[in-house]
Amino acid sequence: MSEHSPLDLAEGDPFGPHNLPYGVFSTADEPDRRRLGVRIGGHVLDAGAAAHALGSPYAALLAQPSLNPLLAAGRTAWRDVRRALTAWVTVPAHRADIEPLLHPLDGVTLHLPYEVADYVDFYASEHHATNVGRIFRPDGDALTPNWKHLPIGYHGRAGTVVVSGTDVVRPSGQRKAPTDAAPVFGPSVKLDIEAEVGFLVGTPSELGKPVPLADFGEHVFGLTLLNDWSARDVQAWEYVPLGPFLGKSFQTSVSAWVTPLEALDAARTAPPTRDFPLLPYLDDAEEEQPGGFDLRITVEINGEVVAEPPFSSMYWTAAQQLAHMTVNGASLRTGDLYGSGTVSGPEVNQRGSLLELTWNGRDALELAGGKRTFLEDGDEVVLTAWAPGPDGTRVALGEVRGRIVPSV
Amino acid sequence: MSEHSPLDLAEGDPFGPHNLPYGVFSTADEPDRRRLGVRIGGHVLDAGAAAHALGSPYAALLAQPSLNPLLAAGRTAWRDVRRALTAWVTVPAHRADIEPLLHPLDGVTLHLPYEVADYVDFYASEHHATNVGRIFRPDGDALTPNWKHLPIGYHGRAGTVVVSGTDVVRPSGQRKAPTDAAPVFGPSVKLDIEAEVGFLVGTPSELGKPVPLADFGEHVFGLTLLNDWSARDVQAWEYVPLGPFLGKSFQTSVSAWVTPLEALDAARTAPPTRDFPLLPYLDDAEEEQPGGFDLRITVEINGEVVAEPPFSSMYWTAAQQLAHMTVNGASLRTGDLYGSGTVSGPEVNQRGSLLELTWNGRDALELAGGKRTFLEDGDEVVLTAWAPGPDGTRVALGEVRGRIVPSV
Repeated sequence: MSEHSPLDLAEGDPFGPHNLPYGVFSTADEPDRRRLGVRIGGHVLDAGAAAHALGSPYAALLAQPSLNPLLAAGRTAWRDVRRALTAWVTVPAHRADIEPLLHPLDGVTLHLPYEVADYVDFYASEHHATNVGRIFRPDGDALTPNWKHLPIGYHGRAGTVVVSGTDVVRPSGQRKAPTDAAPVFGPSVKLDIEAEVGFLVGTPSELGKPVPLADFGEHVFGLTLLNDWSARDVQAWEYVPLGPFLGKSFQTSVSAWVTPLEALDAARTAPPTRDFPLLPYLDDAEEEQPGGFDLRITVEINGEVVAEPPFSSMYWTAAQQLAHMTVNGASLRTGDLYGSGTVSGPEVNQRGSLLELTWNGRDALELAGGKRTFLEDGDEVVLTAWAPGPDGTRVALGEVRGRIVPSV
Repeated sequence: MSEHSPLDLAEGDPFGPHNLPYGVFSTADEPDRRRLGVRIGGHVLDAGAAAHALGSPYAALLAQPSLNPLLAAGRTAWRDVRRALTAWVTVPAHRADIEPLLHPLDGVTLHLPYEVADYVDFYASEHHATNVGRIFRPDGDALTPNWKHLPIGYHGRAGTVVVSGTDVVRPSGQRKAPTDAAPVFGPSVKLDIEAEVGFLVGTPSELGKPVPLADFGEHVFGLTLLNDWSARDVQAWEYVPLGPFLGKSFQTSVSAWVTPLEALDAARTAPPTRDFPLLPYLDDAEEEQPGGFDLRITVEINGEVVAEPPFSSMYWTAAQQLAHMTVNGASLRTGDLYGSGTVSGPEVNQRGSLLELTWNGRDALELAGGKRTFLEDGDEVVLTAWAPGPDGTRVALGEVRGRIVPSV
């Protein structure tokens, strides 16, 4: 064993062997060869090469340029591969084989690790929906009458989901202030973030066959942080009656790392008490595992923390969202991705969007770099999160980073 | 030349050599071998085999189980392949090679001919939007203030786009009448159709780079009829504030045939006069080709004509929809599909949905098989359409057929 092995992690490293998220990387030597990797501490393990070196039966599934084949392989394969990976990075006898296959993170390029099939975005935080309702519809009820009976969601653009680190070109579009006679066109002046958690579907389902709450773990492979960039001025003008479209479709950023569901077993937590009885297909009172996740998200703008949204406060769970999304018989495909909706807690500093943090620009944030209502060109936003892991550890999700560049 | 060649078409056959739509078929002998085919009269030509037999440079592009490689090849390839196909089915010298490669339509199975990337649905008929506004929002203005300034649209579910002939399982979901205290769950009692025209994107575009009106023909490969099945009771309860979701996502049916844009050159027509000045990116007054298409759609239920919606009445054109969809920098992918929105003309018998035809169930249709407000189990809906072709011919689009089967 080497003295300074990359496998000798600092005490409490949140990317320790209890985490092991999956990504896709390439190296400077072979920029066109994308490979499946697993993060351990500050390194990425070439998963296919490791499987080959150790004679694993999963070598074919792991020697891939994308996570999709593993996603499609189903829950038993996910569990077995995770067990094998845990052994490879923890059993001393494997070190000699594994260490040469570790690449320092700062020496690799990370790619979008899966092909997105359909992308759906939900609206599951009561605090967020209430805030947005108050801002966008000041004369009506903050929550629409359906909100506590079903997880409201809509389809977004799968083709513009990008990996963390991709710049965000400021989108242009139509906007119209209530006092304007006609809409004007130009770069958005209310460019915003939405701090969310995304859920990635592995196992597909059949057309016409709903997925019950209890089958969440059969279909969902893992989690990712997600930033649903939003042009609030475009959105406000376009969204009645058919929902958000161009205000959202220009870009959605996700982590380079997908955290397996199993790594978050210790983070399971009960969702908030529901105010109305739920229809049977959404009633999770008797489910074996609680449906919430105790993920603590941090939102930073230019290195300064602006919010710490608690995912445990979400009214609707990811299992309920999956059950709802399929209850009409809509099928799932490998690579389907769905976002939780903006995560906002009850406190002002727990809000996951600038719309809420600045109350639609009324109350500017005082940052070290100057006041901010919405994002300015050059601003960099980073989402991070961690959750309780087994035995007092922490499990970190991969960050989502994005910098605003001027409109073209 | 044989006496009764499949290439000797009846005078005025709307699937003559001026049409030549593309599909994907398999035969009973080799059910797993999907092949690109081109429809000519009542036959399908095995396009890859024909290209091989005639030594075409496009053999590799046509010997495929999907239309996607040809879609991705771009406009010059589309034009050249169409020219070659036209020669193969019209030049007598090719008959001996081509005839053995023709399969009667009733002996093949037709498949979804492309992989859908993103699916977007618009709302471009003023008559439809006005009718729906009056029905769903009787106390407000029928059209929202944005409607004449931008083509309203939203993303739908790409994974549940199916080929003509696929049964429609009656979806279940939540519904709530305004007088009910709480929502109930069950099979939709307001299952409806939406007669639309779909546009299929071939050439992708770059993230951050809008596609101008004039580039419509560079990106859009062709047209298809599209039935956007809708559960009106589910939709009415869920759609505020983020738009239609489960009321639409269970299934969308498209033709087995994609009609190349070029086949519809003679059907180009000017859109209706616009009531408001358009922002420059949508202003099509100076475009070389008029943006509308003179397509006459027929909606049949159980063999009886219930409506004849005129596509030429659409307020927004497909080119405007493409320009709008990308003006925020959203990129296009090969296989992106977008629907025009329900086609409804000014007359009662020109409405493309039962919602409008029966005024949300108030005025039942008197059909030979009995009264209908919305669809009943066993009902079969067929959309057909034709447009003027060159020299007095007609160009037919492939039909879209679907039968309702009971909820599971």
